Amino acid sequence: MIKAAILGGAGYVGGELVRFLLGHPEVELVGISSRTHPGLPLGKVWPQFRGRPDLVFAEGEPLRAADKAEVVFLAMGQGEAMDLAPLLLEEGKKVIDLGPDFRFRNPATYAEWYGKPHVCPSLAAEAVYGLPELWRAEIKGARLIGNPGCYPTAALLALAPLAAEGLIGPEGIVIDAKSGFSGSGRQPAEGYQFAEATGDFRAYGLPRHRHLPEIEGGLARLVGREVRVTFVPHLVPMARGIFLTAVAGLTRPCTTEEVLEIMARFYQGEPFIHVLDEKTLPQTKAVLGTNYVQLSARVDPRTGRVVVLAALDNLGKGAAGQAVQNMNLLFGLEETMGLTATAVYP
Amino acid sequence: MIKAAILGGAGYVGGELVRFLLGHPEVELVGISSRTHPGLPLGKVWPQFRGRPDLVFAEGEPLRAADKAEVVFLAMGQGEAMDLAPLLLEEGKKVIDLGPDFRFRNPATYAEWYGKPHVCPSLAAEAVYGLPELWRAEIKGARLIGNPGCYPTAALLALAPLAAEGLIGPEGIVIDAKSGFSGSGRQPAEGYQFAEATGDFRAYGLPRHRHLPEIEGGLARLVGREVRVTFVPHLVPMARGIFLTAVAGLTRPCTTEEVLEIMARFYQGEPFIHVLDEKTLPQTKAVLGTNYVQLSARVDPRTGRVVVLAALDNLGKGAAGQAVQNMNLLFGLEETMGLTATAVYP
Amino acid sequence: MIKAAILGGAGYVGGELVRFLLGHPEVELVGISSRTHPGLPLGKVWPQFRGRPDLVFAEGEPLRAADKAEVVFLAMGQGEAMDLAPLLLEEGKKVIDLGPDFRFRNPATYAEWYGKPHVCPSLAAEAVYGLPELWRAEIKGARLIGNPGCYPTAALLALAPLAAEGLIGPEGIVIDAKSGFSGSGRQPAEGYQFAEATGDFRAYGLPRHRHLPEIEGGLARLVGREVRVTFVPHLVPMARGIFLTAVAGLTRPCTTEEVLEIMARFYQGEPFIHVLDEKTLPQTKAVLGTNYVQLSARVDPRTGRVVVLAALDNLGKGAAGQAVQNMNLLFGLEETMGLTATAVYP
Amino acid sequence: MIKAAILGGAGYVGGELVRFLLGHPEVELVGISSRTHPGLPLGKVWPQFRGRPDLVFAEGEPLRAADKAEVVFLAMGQGEAMDLAPLLLEEGKKVIDLGPDFRFRNPATYAEWYGKPHVCPSLAAEAVYGLPELWRAEIKGARLIGNPGCYPTAALLALAPLAAEGLIGPEGIVIDAKSGFSGSGRQPAEGYQFAEATGDFRAYGLPRHRHLPEIEGGLARLVGREVRVTFVPHLVPMARGIFLTAVAGLTRPCTTEEVLEIMARFYQGEPFIHVLDEKTLPQTKAVLGTNYVQLSARVDPRTGRVVVLAALDNLGKGAAGQAVQNMNLLFGLEETMGLTATAVYP
Repeated sequence: MIKAAILGGAGYVGGELVRFLLGHPEVELVGISSRTHPGLPLGKVWPQFRGRPDLVFAEGEPLRAADKAEVVFLAMGQGEAMDLAPLLLEEGKKVIDLGPDFRFRNPATYAEWYGKPHVCPSLAAEAVYGLPELWRAEIKGARLIGNPGCYPTAALLALAPLAAEGLIGPEGIVIDAKSGFSGSGRQPAEGYQFAEATGDFRAYGLPRHRHLPEIEGGLARLVGREVRVTFVPHLVPMARGIFLTAVAGLTRPCTTEEVLEIMARFYQGEPFIHVLDEKTLPQTKAVLGTNYVQLSARVDPRTGRVVVLAALDNLGKGAAGQAVQNMNLLFGLEETMGLTATAVYP
Repeated sequence: MIKAAILGGAGYVGGELVRFLLGHPEVELVGISSRTHPGLPLGKVWPQFRGRPDLVFAEGEPLRAADKAEVVFLAMGQGEAMDLAPLLLEEGKKVIDLGPDFRFRNPATYAEWYGKPHVCPSLAAEAVYGLPELWRAEIKGARLIGNPGCYPTAALLALAPLAAEGLIGPEGIVIDAKSGFSGSGRQPAEGYQFAEATGDFRAYGLPRHRHLPEIEGGLARLVGREVRVTFVPHLVPMARGIFLTAVAGLTRPCTTEEVLEIMARFYQGEPFIHVLDEKTLPQTKAVLGTNYVQLSARVDPRTGRVVVLAALDNLGKGAAGQAVQNMNLLFGLEETMGLTATAVYP
Repeated sequence: MIKAAILGGAGYVGGELVRFLLGHPEVELVGISSRTHPGLPLGKVWPQFRGRPDLVFAEGEPLRAADKAEVVFLAMGQGEAMDLAPLLLEEGKKVIDLGPDFRFRNPATYAEWYGKPHVCPSLAAEAVYGLPELWRAEIKGARLIGNPGCYPTAALLALAPLAAEGLIGPEGIVIDAKSGFSGSGRQPAEGYQFAEATGDFRAYGLPRHRHLPEIEGGLARLVGREVRVTFVPHLVPMARGIFLTAVAGLTRPCTTEEVLEIMARFYQGEPFIHVLDEKTLPQTKAVLGTNYVQLSARVDPRTGRVVVLAALDNLGKGAAGQAVQNMNLLFGLEETMGLTATAVYP
Repeated sequence: MIKAAILGGAGYVGGELVRFLLGHPEVELVGISSRTHPGLPLGKVWPQFRGRPDLVFAEGEPLRAADKAEVVFLAMGQGEAMDLAPLLLEEGKKVIDLGPDFRFRNPATYAEWYGKPHVCPSLAAEAVYGLPELWRAEIKGARLIGNPGCYPTAALLALAPLAAEGLIGPEGIVIDAKSGFSGSGRQPAEGYQFAEATGDFRAYGLPRHRHLPEIEGGLARLVGREVRVTFVPHLVPMARGIFLTAVAGLTRPCTTEEVLEIMARFYQGEPFIHVLDEKTLPQTKAVLGTNYVQLSARVDPRTGRVVVLAALDNLGKGAAGQAVQNMNLLFGLEETMGLTATAVYP
């Protein structure tokens, strides 16, 4: 059994990590912390864990919760992980950070988009970006994982096959993304109240959402040169889920059939990626609570563009699910272990 | 008092027309029909009208419901209006069609996108496209109005100011649109069931939604030459509302401030169009049940593109509200009459 | 035109008052205040009023917003109205309080259930409980109205006809009530966040919700002796609406038909109360945003009990709508003025 | 590995069974049928199974899907199971029926409430009512299980401890129950459409819902004499979940603390029943997609009544989860096997 700890377990990502790890046959959850709920049992902080195992949020320093762990998941606010990761790594633990601190090799990018300098640029350079379907080999030997953001996961998985094939160029990509409200975090706010959010659809974070450099950086790796993207995120009145609609110009004429075949071939054997057929479109509810991704695409011959669609769960493949997938890789376990439950539907 | 009738009053657009017309100080609703509910009182077909006026769906031929009317609203399925409109016009009535039959001057466009030939092309050529903010003058003297589709209303209002200014070109426009489920009509279907739709976000109608030629045709009128658009519609788990996100390349560098000023100037004095300021973004719930439209835009200097956002109610400004606005124009009434109620919020 | 002011206009009840008063043909809204948003225009505090009239929340003392008003609506937290009402009344204004401060003639009841002594018991004794369908006569001549709570409005309207007829006794009444989240106010809280509230149904406030003495007091007035009720409130994942299910033992055998006839007769001529027929049951969405109430009942001959059902909008008939109805009575206007809009449906 | 088949796998209960059985470590799902989707792969009928195992709905006679099975789950409409069960039992298979056909020992009760005579009364008499927490011993040796209805499961689990203790009597019990829309089945209907159901709360099935005799029959077994209940079911705008509020008179004065202790003692060691403490109330979302039940209670000393609250998932413990629990018992497996996943929250 792998001994795991979660620092920051009272937010939505942290709660989802608990859920996945409690259901993982090879993991023992040995510690959990939260600055806001020290000393409380899990079931007082999360209604879904009432009556479940007697885990208690650590008192005192968050780090203490990690004492017995071999792997530590950091699900804290931006900027906290870069303080803690060096200490944890020194003790020989593996670290998977679900925040942005270790997603950028270039500390200047981090500083520009997150508004403060990186305190350990050498670790930032060492950290591996944990998107297994695209960069699995690097993950296996790593000790520090920067777990991707939810939107970048969707965007990169959606566009990678066509980028790899040279079917789409670096210019003119428009990404229209839609997220459920859990993506906004657990901190209450007027606009996130049920009464104001239900029945409402809105955009936010325009024109410089913080996931933009992560998307562009990832695409640049795939295409081999700089990429500029227009990225428009929105909030959907649903608890979970990301739906991403990417539009890009095709570099040569192509049918929907060909595009879908390219995508299916690219992801052949990938257990979490489902490229749907020509008659089916992705939908977020089909992957609720899971690590699965639904992908599809349609060519619009009238404009010479392709529309690529992706659906995933922002807390699943977009955060905690992918983190567990990365942990499985780090420890040489079956990659799908603890991650094969079907979505609860309807 | 203007005597009005509604043919097709048991669908969502029809029900919304009843609501607006019952609240209109200068209208008497003299007849209503529905093929599916002949003889039933309004309150048996619509829960919101229980206990309200004693209107009964006409028995027999739908046309009979229009006998005493001066103006007839057609809220029927595609293809029915072109059969009925000639008969109603012959009797000297004004006709406002909320379906697609009279939105295209070129009957070939209609035939191509709606799959059957137009039966009265001369009337199609005569009909006026009823989008008052853009083509008000033509509406005033008309006898037959093709009331715009919900998506085209949003798209044309969003892009008209920048198109008129020459700020956006005819190429590269991407329109990502999101609609509440009432846009799918009242006919039950598995995927529209509450249990399957709640918590779900999906795309549909790709890549050739029927509103596409209406959007492109309208933009062509504004720009003065042919326009090709990529249009991706989606369904949002909410009852009503359209949110439209249009991305277009700018023909010259420009700030968000300038763009908002251009839009505000273009719609100056328009009672139903609210161009929001730089700190506010549109949201569908703010215009629920109304004829209002919220618009805004953000320039992305990194890509030289502008993102234009629009929110309206698909049954309000996107259908019944706009139809009443057109009626007000046809009869020389104050254009806002019966249309100034505030959205129910939250 | 009656000059009206609203003190406490940034909460859900206050926002709904603005909506009703702006749509009222005989009211001019001359002032509005909010402790939390002084100096802000209406459209910055409420998205539904963006682009609408140039009302600004008063700066300085809330009372200043009432300077020019003949009638003042108090939509503030518990305990504030009893401080302000005496000052407003002294200036000859009429006062309608939408909080609990003036709903109890006996200040001891107020003190027991609201946890602090009443500061002006003589005014509490003078104030009129503003439920027009039951006690209209008293309202007309009043200068201070205690506008009923949302649950008590539903409970008293539901049970009054059978209580008046002696069909139900003072014992054994069970009231199971369900409210939308706007009933919890605009103050953000973790459990009211969209992500946690959507898809969730819960009870709260057990076993001593503050509306209980108001329900029991009202029923006692109707029955002529003390009444004890079991009251269980719940939260429904919807923005608005109260659905109330009351169960009571019948004092004599009776059919559903008879009960419905008694209820219909009791409310004959009441414009806002719709007693539904034997084939129809109330639903909250049918009265969304309105001052209407849907009532029905079913006798269960197996147990000798009757189930009475009521649906209303907690912000409409349950708060702001009823307050406007009371204002109409106070000023001798048509009672339905400004209150006849149909629910937005679906 | 136990070989299992599902007859009626295209409804909500059937889909949930597939989910539980695919996740069960000791079950192989060898057949599935649906009258409406013969020959279709699972992923065409259910979006959550796209890309998952290659199960195909059997063509031809439903029974053929059960050929290789040792245990057969019947998730069909009322009246079908009693035709099929005898044939399956003859072949030595165990049968778990999730419909009402085998919930009543007395065929007259079935005939009265379900409107047609029972075709195999001897099997009805033999069948075991599958509510393990109350009647576990009988289940273990059975070959035919009548899996309880969702409301009866909630009602009986809620009231059993107090009934067993003699704390509540057979008279005066009021059960107010609320269900998500999946409880209404997958068959589309106007009132179940998303646009009409969202934001709406309603009652239905009054005053004689078909689950009433099952509730009363179960309570009679617990109390030892006939019980009469008032039962009012409602629909909540959520996909899943049952919340049940039962009110009963106490036979002797008692505190909330005592009642909770009695309930906790009664269910001590039961892995699926969580009796919450005095500070916490049940909520449906906390048990979404699971076999868990949250229970609590509050005494109202003012009226001498107790309010008992229960939350469960109508498709989980209310149907498919409980069926799998019963299967585990029938085959001597760990009772919790395949049923320990935590609810997806938020």
